[in-house]
Amino acid sequence: MGILVLGTVALDTVQTPFGKRDALLGGSASHFSMSARLFTDVSLVAVIGKDFPDKHIAFLKNKGIDLTSLAKESGDTFRWQGEYSGDLNTAKTLDTHLGVLATFRPQLTAAQRRFKNVFLANVDPDIQNYLLASMRNSTIVGLDSMNFWIHTKRKSLLRALKKVDIFVANDQEARDLTGQTNLIKAAKSLRSYGPRIVLIKKGEHGVFLQADSCTLLLPAYPTDTVVDPTGAGDTFAGGFMGYLARAGKVNAATLKKAICYGTIAASFNVEGFGLEKTSALARNDLEKRLRVFKRHISI
Amino acid sequence: MGILVLGTVALDTVQTPFGKRDALLGGSASHFSMSARLFTDVSLVAVIGKDFPDKHIAFLKNKGIDLTSLAKESGDTFRWQGEYSGDLNTAKTLDTHLGVLATFRPQLTAAQRRFKNVFLANVDPDIQNYLLASMRNSTIVGLDSMNFWIHTKRKSLLRALKKVDIFVANDQEARDLTGQTNLIKAAKSLRSYGPRIVLIKKGEHGVFLQADSCTLLLPAYPTDTVVDPTGAGDTFAGGFMGYLARAGKVNAATLKKAICYGTIAASFNVEGFGLEKTSALARNDLEKRLRVFKRHISI
Repeated sequence: MGILVLGTVALDTVQTPFGKRDALLGGSASHFSMSARLFTDVSLVAVIGKDFPDKHIAFLKNKGIDLTSLAKESGDTFRWQGEYSGDLNTAKTLDTHLGVLATFRPQLTAAQRRFKNVFLANVDPDIQNYLLASMRNSTIVGLDSMNFWIHTKRKSLLRALKKVDIFVANDQEARDLTGQTNLIKAAKSLRSYGPRIVLIKKGEHGVFLQADSCTLLLPAYPTDTVVDPTGAGDTFAGGFMGYLARAGKVNAATLKKAICYGTIAASFNVEGFGLEKTSALARNDLEKRLRVFKRHISI
Repeated sequence: MGILVLGTVALDTVQTPFGKRDALLGGSASHFSMSARLFTDVSLVAVIGKDFPDKHIAFLKNKGIDLTSLAKESGDTFRWQGEYSGDLNTAKTLDTHLGVLATFRPQLTAAQRRFKNVFLANVDPDIQNYLLASMRNSTIVGLDSMNFWIHTKRKSLLRALKKVDIFVANDQEARDLTGQTNLIKAAKSLRSYGPRIVLIKKGEHGVFLQADSCTLLLPAYPTDTVVDPTGAGDTFAGGFMGYLARAGKVNAATLKKAICYGTIAASFNVEGFGLEKTSALARNDLEKRLRVFKRHISI
């Protein structure tokens, strides 16, 4: 089926108790692609600047990601700098440099406009809305956002939410957007904004999904080597949406499998810096870890 | 089989966004008993003061709890005052008055010394050690503690841990006691202190159990009416240990059922103040909610 992902391609500088890495290939669309590619063809829509290293382009191509709509504009690539300490659950943002993201308007090919599966990864909701308006044929559209947009572009985000099927949020975002501290109430409120499926990511505590057909709860895979959680949520979304795209239908059974694959993909992501672990994954690595995980959670 | 529980019987004053209650019947042993009684006979070991209302004694007796070793001493009953706000995950302790707890040394009957199933609920580890030294025949001993004892009586707590089978801790306690922020590493360290089974309670995020025979992960039951979480951990322990006592053996299969019952019992506890909800429970209420829960977590 293939999936179209709109998001960021970034240069990330990350410090964790395990070390520091400068200008790693990162961004929501990059992390999403690394896990989604294990299930379906991925077409990436993002923007980079003149400073973006050719080696990263080659790396993404080598992973089979379609870069037809990876725009290159004059100006700098989006850069993020962050730091993790303690339980590594929360990043402290040290610096954000929007660069070419500030003026980006995605341009799709005629073929891309007809994609059925679309994921609007974390990026300015104005850009998400712009892309949504270009789509002709979409049947499963997912969206992720972040606190920065919830607080600065709430109206634009709510406009986008009206048109999507699946909203993927972390627990704090769900609380901030709805004003509900209880996550079950927050999920209910979020569904009233438009999406028929709400998935709340709780980091090391797993995920909670609410849909008409089912309520699902899944712990995270218990890994003892959390090196760098950057992009774990995007990696989850890639496994989740990638599997749904491959399955071609959304119901309780496919949603269960999708959150399992998202969870397992995310567990690999946190075990290395940037895309280190997820870029080396094959589908069989997911299946092997999933078998172990199922033993932990089967009641 | 029956279970012996050592802990506190307290008068709790609690404020949450849902209201305030003064001098409620509370304490670790009371909350534990309310869920454990659904599975087995409960013999409670604790101390109260002269100010303890007769109606609470009648209430506990009426629930079938054996109060032979509920000592009444001159002095005040242990009192705790706390407040919850926001997501209600963490209590802010406003006042603690030890009263008769300060000098308590539990005295058991000859029959009680021969109990096979014992739970040392949260109380001074010196008292836990004192009781452990009295036991003649115990085969499944569980222990709970709290940050206050981890910081003020670490040596005594470690001495007790050497002799118990199951350590039930919340996530912050596990981190504080081991110095490990990663919970999988913390559980591993805790097992090296003595207990062959470590169960980490994560509040609204569920539980994580590590034993030789298995690793288990279970989300919390998703309730949208969290009124007062006081005693949720003790209620969990009561369902968990109560079921194990009834089953009469500890293996992967019984541990799975035990964490399910603990989880469901705790979900009722948080839906009312004090013992309001758990004291009204019948075993069938647990079974009904467990069936719903299994649909949410079956993958």
